[in-house]
Amino acid sequence: MTLEAIRYRTGSLQILNQLLLPHQTVYDDIRSVQDAYEAIKSMKVRGAPAIAIVGCLSLAVELRAGAGGDDPLTFIRESLCHLTSARPTAVNMGRAARELMEFAENESMEKNSEQLRESVIGWIEDMLERDVNDNRKIGNYGAQHILSGVPRDSVTILTHCNTGSLATAGYGTALGVVRSLHALGRLKRVYCTETRPYNQGARLTAYEAVAEGIPATLITDSMAALTMREMDITAVVVGADRVVANGDTANKVGTYQLAIAAKHHGIPFYVAAPSTSCDLSLESGRDIIIEVRPPEELTSINGVPIAAPGIEVWNPAFDVTPHQLITGGIITELGVFLPSELQAALTGRLTAL
Amino acid sequence: MTLEAIRYRTGSLQILNQLLLPHQTVYDDIRSVQDAYEAIKSMKVRGAPAIAIVGCLSLAVELRAGAGGDDPLTFIRESLCHLTSARPTAVNMGRAARELMEFAENESMEKNSEQLRESVIGWIEDMLERDVNDNRKIGNYGAQHILSGVPRDSVTILTHCNTGSLATAGYGTALGVVRSLHALGRLKRVYCTETRPYNQGARLTAYEAVAEGIPATLITDSMAALTMREMDITAVVVGADRVVANGDTANKVGTYQLAIAAKHHGIPFYVAAPSTSCDLSLESGRDIIIEVRPPEELTSINGVPIAAPGIEVWNPAFDVTPHQLITGGIITELGVFLPSELQAALTGRLTAL
Repeated sequence: MTLEAIRYRTGSLQILNQLLLPHQTVYDDIRSVQDAYEAIKSMKVRGAPAIAIVGCLSLAVELRAGAGGDDPLTFIRESLCHLTSARPTAVNMGRAARELMEFAENESMEKNSEQLRESVIGWIEDMLERDVNDNRKIGNYGAQHILSGVPRDSVTILTHCNTGSLATAGYGTALGVVRSLHALGRLKRVYCTETRPYNQGARLTAYEAVAEGIPATLITDSMAALTMREMDITAVVVGADRVVANGDTANKVGTYQLAIAAKHHGIPFYVAAPSTSCDLSLESGRDIIIEVRPPEELTSINGVPIAAPGIEVWNPAFDVTPHQLITGGIITELGVFLPSELQAALTGRLTAL
Repeated sequence: MTLEAIRYRTGSLQILNQLLLPHQTVYDDIRSVQDAYEAIKSMKVRGAPAIAIVGCLSLAVELRAGAGGDDPLTFIRESLCHLTSARPTAVNMGRAARELMEFAENESMEKNSEQLRESVIGWIEDMLERDVNDNRKIGNYGAQHILSGVPRDSVTILTHCNTGSLATAGYGTALGVVRSLHALGRLKRVYCTETRPYNQGARLTAYEAVAEGIPATLITDSMAALTMREMDITAVVVGADRVVANGDTANKVGTYQLAIAAKHHGIPFYVAAPSTSCDLSLESGRDIIIEVRPPEELTSINGVPIAAPGIEVWNPAFDVTPHQLITGGIITELGVFLPSELQAALTGRLTAL
């Protein structure tokens, strides 16, 4: 059974409170846009795709209860603005807000308030279903591609950060590939890096694996190369914050180092990402600016200092892996593509391998 | 000024209590072999060379006070046995105990109790002086070798774990090279990995750097490759638990991954180790058994859990870097050698480069 981090039934929404993970499993009710705003801002929910879907679903819940009265369009606009401001760097919420607003404006031309509410709720529910389905497709395409190289045996995967149900609308991207392999009975084991400094691997990926009985082993980030040499790793699969036109990929810091180690060991390196995470407007990874985050993320854990006072810190949140190191391919809901094929594939000039 | 982790004056010994670092700087008196045994066992002092020197110095302190009475040889033998059992895997204590016992037995043939005590105290004081001097030589040889490639500019070093005053008799090995560069006014900056899971970099190397005003920046282990690409790293310098005949080197886990990343970026990779850490009896790194340590080191910090309960863990304490990746050389107190030259150099068939 897949861990359900977002529980949505028409008119009601609950989210797994990630602030309490991995030690407590508590679902919080989200009854309003304001509830969602606060949950996003306080990081009860995190992961750009998950933020977008929780934000939109909270709007659907309020619309179902009749919010906006005679002027739902204004209510929708203000709600989306508010939600987008909760964590402005999470691009998916902004993108969803723009698309949904355009849709709502068009619908409002020919529909009354009640019909408009219904249409927008329908759009949001479709978005949830589409996102989860896209992740399932990513999982299946990725699993098949990895298995195509190993006819009978089960496989061992190494992954980084959290890219599962807790970061997406459901199922996950890189962890979705792991889920698919497990569902096929072909996963021997997944090695998860703890993913310093925010420990998404130790806290969240490990939690998902334990919750679903996926055979998983936690390692420190520094053990990845040794694991590749000693543990017969079939493939490395990671997610992406952004994939640009030439296939260069921005992802959680440490991804670049994993890709170098995978190349050194001749292990295929895959990036799993929905096409919505691909940004063809940027030509290469050189154009991506690296976000540097506060030192405290690295020098303390849960407020307890763990480093020598006074030490300077560099804390880049992600790094860029050049396309040359993405030797397995980029796994999307449209299929698995080499970095050099990505642009053509996404613009419809190439079909899945 | 070099941080003094071991304060020895004839008849008295104090050690910097590493359990309280980096938050408190407290020196504990070591008045007896039993005090040293407890300090080693509880890890107030750690690092194989530091353990050996503290153990032997505690014996010198007791001998100065007349311990052993008419039969110092028995007292010395029993003390060394006891000290070696505190942390049996720290090979340096065992080696020092064997050498010192052999010396004491020879001396006892022709000397009375008082003279024997004096000889043994002298041997131990020589050992302290020799170890520190060897580290200074390592620092100077390493600094000169690194600078030989960059005539005028200052250099940026990346290092791993703690190999400084807190792990050795004083000054340090890899961190000794950094100290020498700093003393020469040629160190622009040193990047220290935090070194999960035991955080020796964040706690100890960062502490030494702050204490001595060495320009240093802390990064997570996963940021090393990005740092190599972005921060113009001149060389990577690490220590060694053991260097075997072909130059393969066992060191703190994560070293292998750093060496791969350094190779990828064309950055010279150095191992700094006294000749006493070289073990020519083993032909290659394949013969070294990897010590696997308890999961709790990885899943909790200061007793506070930081990972999902129930997750399996692999926690190898060190890894082996093949000699092909040690592109800068092996820095010893005899000079800097290529891995292929090490055996000849240590057996006197080759002089320093």
